[in-house]
Amino acid sequence: MKALIQPVRLDDEKSELIVLDQTLLPGKVEYLHLTTQESIWEAIYKLQVRGAPAIGIAAGYGVYLGAKASAATTYEEFVADFNQSKDYLASSRPTAVNLFWALDRMAKRLETEKDQSVPELKAALLQEANQILADDETVCQRIGEYGAELLADGMTILTHCNAGAIATSGFGTALAPVYVAQDKGLTISVYADETRPLLQGARLTAWELVESGIDTTLICDNMASIVMKEGKIDAIFVGCDRVALNGDTANKIGTSGVAILAKHYGIPFYVCAPMSTIDIECKTGDDIQIEERPGAEITDMWYETPMAPAGVKTYNPAFDVTDHRLITGIITEKGILKPNYEESISNIFALV
Amino acid sequence: MKALIQPVRLDDEKSELIVLDQTLLPGKVEYLHLTTQESIWEAIYKLQVRGAPAIGIAAGYGVYLGAKASAATTYEEFVADFNQSKDYLASSRPTAVNLFWALDRMAKRLETEKDQSVPELKAALLQEANQILADDETVCQRIGEYGAELLADGMTILTHCNAGAIATSGFGTALAPVYVAQDKGLTISVYADETRPLLQGARLTAWELVESGIDTTLICDNMASIVMKEGKIDAIFVGCDRVALNGDTANKIGTSGVAILAKHYGIPFYVCAPMSTIDIECKTGDDIQIEERPGAEITDMWYETPMAPAGVKTYNPAFDVTDHRLITGIITEKGILKPNYEESISNIFALV
Repeated sequence: MKALIQPVRLDDEKSELIVLDQTLLPGKVEYLHLTTQESIWEAIYKLQVRGAPAIGIAAGYGVYLGAKASAATTYEEFVADFNQSKDYLASSRPTAVNLFWALDRMAKRLETEKDQSVPELKAALLQEANQILADDETVCQRIGEYGAELLADGMTILTHCNAGAIATSGFGTALAPVYVAQDKGLTISVYADETRPLLQGARLTAWELVESGIDTTLICDNMASIVMKEGKIDAIFVGCDRVALNGDTANKIGTSGVAILAKHYGIPFYVCAPMSTIDIECKTGDDIQIEERPGAEITDMWYETPMAPAGVKTYNPAFDVTDHRLITGIITEKGILKPNYEESISNIFALV
Repeated sequence: MKALIQPVRLDDEKSELIVLDQTLLPGKVEYLHLTTQESIWEAIYKLQVRGAPAIGIAAGYGVYLGAKASAATTYEEFVADFNQSKDYLASSRPTAVNLFWALDRMAKRLETEKDQSVPELKAALLQEANQILADDETVCQRIGEYGAELLADGMTILTHCNAGAIATSGFGTALAPVYVAQDKGLTISVYADETRPLLQGARLTAWELVESGIDTTLICDNMASIVMKEGKIDAIFVGCDRVALNGDTANKIGTSGVAILAKHYGIPFYVCAPMSTIDIECKTGDDIQIEERPGAEITDMWYETPMAPAGVKTYNPAFDVTDHRLITGIITEKGILKPNYEESISNIFALV
């Protein structure tokens, strides 16, 4: 199965990192051709590339391109050039865990290649960056395959926010089951919550689904209840930012509300979670701190006239935690975990 | 208790209908001084005045001002002038039930005054229009008083959409308990759902509450779950468009979702309903047809770049029905109705 949309890829011949500029979506589909370290730094900083896996892939290729340009002739000189590029890219988005994870993975690979010549070191870095991409493709595809087993021809799912192709190597997590099912010849329709305040559902999820030929209906977040009540939704698939040992799941604000509605209406609610997002050190959702963002995200963004009065307070939590008791299953690349999650998560980590 | 904001009032000396232009809120607070029938028609048509009770009040005063200008000397001539004005104003918003109700009430009053002189007819119409306003004030105030009994100092409520002062004579329905409690010296805080797609919560509810000195926090609709989970909300008060005999309640889209969340978190959920919105001919919510509105309300309205891709479908129901089993109480001007609603509603109508 080939990804229909590739948000980050390398043209090694031209030494270009090609990045879908997500800040212009859905109005403009523009791929940036980045050749300088500055432009790669900027693409991460400005969220032109976003989504934890996609950032990791961009960082891997970015630091490779930096090192590739090195004129060093010894390992020590080459490592110094590599580190300069690594530290520079690491400063682009200091809260993006996957950025550091990918850069560290590249550094570790370099260490294991100590005895090699500079051209061999460059080749090893290219291979490692390609492997970061390939690993993510494998994870997404497996999540898609496990998730697709839950789908039948003609089904309609609802999703919240964007855990899709453009946040990853090209299949997504929450949307991977839909793409895999489509690839198998099934017709699956999707309702996408617009996902206020930043509208990732309207801008990104709706865009990539329409682009991929999936029948897609955009709704406001507060319409999730009526579409479930009207029998329009067969299952819910969402991504996640972090899963605790007991199955409590942090994801984009509003996810917990969708899960409560799903429970009320008797609709299965699935979390799509790469194993890397399960944090067994985190015992329950109470241990997950919720980022609060500027109120302007709620009050601004509107056309012409202001849409909120001066002097009103705002509350803008970026995430919420969905209680594990509301989750029908957690779909990982190793299979679908079922309650009791503390047991099923412990078991799958023991097996790894 | 005096209303802090009067969305519709008459200056009889200047023959002016003074209307708060709600289309400019919250950016501009501008009162229109309407003297011609055309300008009154336009104010209703353009939603400069909105909310069923407020429209009724504007229509009553509007048709009075039309008749007041009549040069007729006989009852027949006067009725002809009155009817011209009535039919003209009735064409401004053909789906607004309260518009016809108010115009018919004015016409009936005229009929009962058959024997009077033209100046006396004019005085009677003025009195009737004043009574429409006064009746609504009484209804809102009583709902406010019953609702305020449920509030204690320091409590925080959540509301959805705008069933506030500016939709009525000046106290609102869902917000009346807050204003009455404030008048009694209690400090009540409000969380206002922004209420996508048309943002009545952000534009109107937040505006009138801030204007009235109430501590107000604006949130996106999908944040209702987290604020309830975090213990920030003591009760929920919403308005309604129509209540069925069994208590099922049609209100702005998203209300049913709020009610399901409230049930999940164990928070009381109250509907504020003038008796005029209870439709005993309508047995259950299944008999209530839901208006579907243009998808552009979801996809447009955004600053600069488009926020939804071309080709995406939309679904934009304007209302949803909240199941009576989710409603803790229905607050009317005759008292707070409790389940079983079929019984309590039947009883209260038998008493009327």
